[in-house]
Amino acid sequence: MGERVLIALGGNAMTAADGSASPDDQRRAVEGAMRHVTALITAGHQVTLTHGNGPQVGNLLLKNQIAADVVPPVPLDWCGAQTQATIGALVLNALEGRAAVVVTRTLVDPGDPAFQDPVKPIGRYFTEEQAGHFEKLGQTWRRFDRGWRRVVASPEPLEILDAPAVEALVAAGFTVVAAGGGGVPVARDDAGRLVGVEAVIDKDLAAAMLARAVNATVLVIATDVPQAVVGFGTADARPIGSITAAELRVLQAAGHFAGGSMGPKVEAVLRFVEQGGDRAVITSLEDIGAAVNGAAGTVVHR
Amino acid sequence: MGERVLIALGGNAMTAADGSASPDDQRRAVEGAMRHVTALITAGHQVTLTHGNGPQVGNLLLKNQIAADVVPPVPLDWCGAQTQATIGALVLNALEGRAAVVVTRTLVDPGDPAFQDPVKPIGRYFTEEQAGHFEKLGQTWRRFDRGWRRVVASPEPLEILDAPAVEALVAAGFTVVAAGGGGVPVARDDAGRLVGVEAVIDKDLAAAMLARAVNATVLVIATDVPQAVVGFGTADARPIGSITAAELRVLQAAGHFAGGSMGPKVEAVLRFVEQGGDRAVITSLEDIGAAVNGAAGTVVHR
Repeated sequence: MGERVLIALGGNAMTAADGSASPDDQRRAVEGAMRHVTALITAGHQVTLTHGNGPQVGNLLLKNQIAADVVPPVPLDWCGAQTQATIGALVLNALEGRAAVVVTRTLVDPGDPAFQDPVKPIGRYFTEEQAGHFEKLGQTWRRFDRGWRRVVASPEPLEILDAPAVEALVAAGFTVVAAGGGGVPVARDDAGRLVGVEAVIDKDLAAAMLARAVNATVLVIATDVPQAVVGFGTADARPIGSITAAELRVLQAAGHFAGGSMGPKVEAVLRFVEQGGDRAVITSLEDIGAAVNGAAGTVVHR
Repeated sequence: MGERVLIALGGNAMTAADGSASPDDQRRAVEGAMRHVTALITAGHQVTLTHGNGPQVGNLLLKNQIAADVVPPVPLDWCGAQTQATIGALVLNALEGRAAVVVTRTLVDPGDPAFQDPVKPIGRYFTEEQAGHFEKLGQTWRRFDRGWRRVVASPEPLEILDAPAVEALVAAGFTVVAAGGGGVPVARDDAGRLVGVEAVIDKDLAAAMLARAVNATVLVIATDVPQAVVGFGTADARPIGSITAAELRVLQAAGHFAGGSMGPKVEAVLRFVEQGGDRAVITSLEDIGAAVNGAAGTVVHR
């Protein structure tokens, strides 16, 4: 009996091993990822997909910056929308069959404290002088070890606004690609109208919300490691296999996933299971088939 | 009793009057256009939308050209996909209610003779020297009165590949935005795989095909003139009101719509009606409400 599965693919799963995101690199990477997804569909599972877009947005931001004196730059939310369509079209070409890409917006609160304290780095590293130029245009830049990088708000997702369309297509038997890059961030302005905002929504938190909206039983977060690890980087490092949400919350509270990119993934799987999902798995792209059956990855259950 | 209506909006309906396509210009233009569309929905019609993207693709091509030494340029089909998402998100924000954007690919024949004779101008005008630079990269450029401009193939649309998703959403009561810019052009390669191609599909011909696929009864092509005109530019110029498809074919064969942008619009409304559509209208954006009721525009019927 097939499961209803939501799979979140990392943006790096869409680029070459060296992080290059040329169109051909992206196409080949997507084709590789879709072989794993096709195996799941062939096995009878009903799959919904979401994906990251970091390297792709980085490319778009850089083009906008370089051409800014000639062509009006577009805001960050537009860049995110653009990657939903380009990555989505590559997925459709690689999947064939009954599949669809839904341009997806995610609602955020304009009063979210994240807007007062932008911490999410995006795009490439620049020199201090270049960063200063962009700060004069109203952007926030911070110094990192490798140079200056733009930081933006990463507010909480409140609602996947286009989830009803995703649900309708899932119900009609489509493999749907949605909420790419966490969704195009929008907020209501003072007049109540929806407007795009300069922010990046964590794609794993959006994936957990979308998974609940489409009544997925399993959420799989596909990343570049086979499992989450307790004591990462220490002599006592130990991969986590099957674990309850309550147990994982204890490890999270002890600070085991504070650094790096594992933090939001752990929070996402916890939310999905705590809010009623059957189970959630963090694993590598190659293992998503086994992960759906509970035979690979860090498997979180109630 | 509401009709099922497909409305094709010109790409210029998404820009300021001076042709500028800054993000704010596009947003304001889309908000204006959606007021007319909302009136149709409120009147009980079931609306599906498609749109042009010429100025928007022009901006993207220019950014890619300017940044080409730093960021890998993306092909033309990617630019088209990008505009489906950005224009689509603006439409969603302006419409509210039950609406969705479907990333849409259109199948073309790689053996279409259009690929041997690219005639569709895209992007901005450049100098002869600049055009020569891009020709060395494999592009085709032609001299026009205002300068050199890139030309690409405009092959016949064979199938709106993502029409099944559009149909499913229309059936579920969504106002769907689809096949923007004529759809992302794809073709099957020698191995049978779908791949993007460097081409532009006429958005009105794609609209006629999509209208049939979703069983629309009325196709409305919204442009910047209230009606098609016989003897355009002559002393005998006469706007066309109600007309049969057979009568319009006679005028078309006499060369009345050969020049300018009216040619593909006339061909599109003819195809829609000849292939079983109830009626098709060419009119201005402001008149689409009256047009659906047959009270404005050039109304083509069987």
